[in-house]
Amino acid sequence: MPTNKIYGPIQEDLSKVEDKLRSVSKVDFPWLAKLLGYSLKGGGKRIRPVLTLLVGKFYDYNLDYLLPMATAVELLHTATLVHDDAIDKSSVRRGRPTINSVWGEEQAVLLGDYLFAKAGEFAASTGNLRAIRLTVQTIMTISSGELNQAFNAFNLKQTRDDYFQRVSSKTASLFSMATESGAILSQAPEESIELLKDYGHNLGVAFQIVDDILDFIGTEEELGKPVGSDLAQGTLTLPAMLVLERYPEDNPVKRLFQESGDKQKHIPLAIELIGNSPIVQECYNVAADYCTKACHNLSRLPDNPSRQALIQLADYIIRRKK
Amino acid sequence: MPTNKIYGPIQEDLSKVEDKLRSVSKVDFPWLAKLLGYSLKGGGKRIRPVLTLLVGKFYDYNLDYLLPMATAVELLHTATLVHDDAIDKSSVRRGRPTINSVWGEEQAVLLGDYLFAKAGEFAASTGNLRAIRLTVQTIMTISSGELNQAFNAFNLKQTRDDYFQRVSSKTASLFSMATESGAILSQAPEESIELLKDYGHNLGVAFQIVDDILDFIGTEEELGKPVGSDLAQGTLTLPAMLVLERYPEDNPVKRLFQESGDKQKHIPLAIELIGNSPIVQECYNVAADYCTKACHNLSRLPDNPSRQALIQLADYIIRRKK
Repeated sequence: MPTNKIYGPIQEDLSKVEDKLRSVSKVDFPWLAKLLGYSLKGGGKRIRPVLTLLVGKFYDYNLDYLLPMATAVELLHTATLVHDDAIDKSSVRRGRPTINSVWGEEQAVLLGDYLFAKAGEFAASTGNLRAIRLTVQTIMTISSGELNQAFNAFNLKQTRDDYFQRVSSKTASLFSMATESGAILSQAPEESIELLKDYGHNLGVAFQIVDDILDFIGTEEELGKPVGSDLAQGTLTLPAMLVLERYPEDNPVKRLFQESGDKQKHIPLAIELIGNSPIVQECYNVAADYCTKACHNLSRLPDNPSRQALIQLADYIIRRKK
Repeated sequence: MPTNKIYGPIQEDLSKVEDKLRSVSKVDFPWLAKLLGYSLKGGGKRIRPVLTLLVGKFYDYNLDYLLPMATAVELLHTATLVHDDAIDKSSVRRGRPTINSVWGEEQAVLLGDYLFAKAGEFAASTGNLRAIRLTVQTIMTISSGELNQAFNAFNLKQTRDDYFQRVSSKTASLFSMATESGAILSQAPEESIELLKDYGHNLGVAFQIVDDILDFIGTEEELGKPVGSDLAQGTLTLPAMLVLERYPEDNPVKRLFQESGDKQKHIPLAIELIGNSPIVQECYNVAADYCTKACHNLSRLPDNPSRQALIQLADYIIRRKK
């Protein structure tokens, strides 16, 4: 994984986060233990806890606070994935069967609840009320963003502003929580907290835009899930919006959203159209702008290995294939 | 409602909890506001926040802490109901269509997540780390109890111990959290915190047993949902367990759990069998024992209007019809 080099400054401590994540599944009730173990060794890139740790390096790097917080961030992320998959009835995630497909939707909803609360418990163990409030408020922001998306499924009348607001709620909020909490818990001055929070926000928006591009141009093997999943769910992402803007009269996205009956046939057509148009590059440009903004936030912070890593991470996020 | 008299000592402050609950639905996103408003004016009895307030009366009754905590307790309860209904695909609760039946399961899952987090935010606003930890740990206990129930659906090999453990996790934990948090936030001495926590636990077990009885002997109008719902979900409650113990060879519960095909016909037979046997009285006796235990916990606390109310509440919980 190209992230290995980037993770250098905190690689050793990230393995302590992994230990903590493993400890989460050590519970008395065997079924719960099984589900927790399965959901937490899903092979994700752990970008969010890495952010918390890297940010912590700028000031008072105290693992007593940063480790539980980084763990909380990853647990919260996992909880949202488990609920998303249950809601979307997705059968595969990161190339593995989802919790809902193996054990059922009921189990996935309850496991997600448990994981959200466990994230809250880890956040509470920092003893820092500001970090705790940030954690629960982020859950509110994410679920409200997801609700927004659910209510706007198959709705063609969405603007770019709507898109960025949704991306901000459902994805960037967790990135900015990861960086903001790292800054808070390392006793960063207010101005730096704000800069690092904004870095996380901008990085998160870029991350989601790239996710939305990959959903069209990636392969099922790279994505670990079917290509075109967003469209199948009726989620209007930036590439699909650009199709609507470019070909307002008639296009496969419009047909998919408006027609009844067998609509799924329009998905491969949309994928082909997007893949063969300048739309992909245009979306990458938007994502790159957010990464530039993110890195600009860092320029006012001390230059150190962590700052270099955060800049490289922004670059990696654009270039990643999965 | 016979609870009006019992609620006397805190009636005025309960209306402040209602104000706070109403304030929760004042959010910018109109769909979220609608769902929050709908789920929070469901006409419940508000027993759990009442417990927090009544318990607070024994010591330092500070509404700055007790009001947000009582609100958190009710929000947490509402979140569990919203998720339960989504999971069970229930269409009616308290005589009204459920969130999932009106807006969809996806919306219900996300609304529940939001409500859990909002409960966490109210708990965090007390600034009391012990109360915050108690809140998130209670969510973990409840979801783990519900998972246990889900994995044991239509499983005949369950003991009374299994039943009481499940009831303790999925229901009594929230009652004991309501009383324990009230005690913690009113600066009760440790010994009293323990007594009040145990009162809540025992009251909660009694409450659930009565719920399980009413599911067989109540009317759809009283229950606000179909009679026999637990059996339909494959949940083995105390009355159904007693049927298995009394008629080990052949009985409608066994048939329902073991047969494939059209099993639903066994539900009315189970309801009739239970209604016409001493099983109901036996279950009430078990519930009454828990209420006696609950009240015994109170005997070591100062006699005051709150203590009287808590004793009356235990009596009401046994006699309630819905």
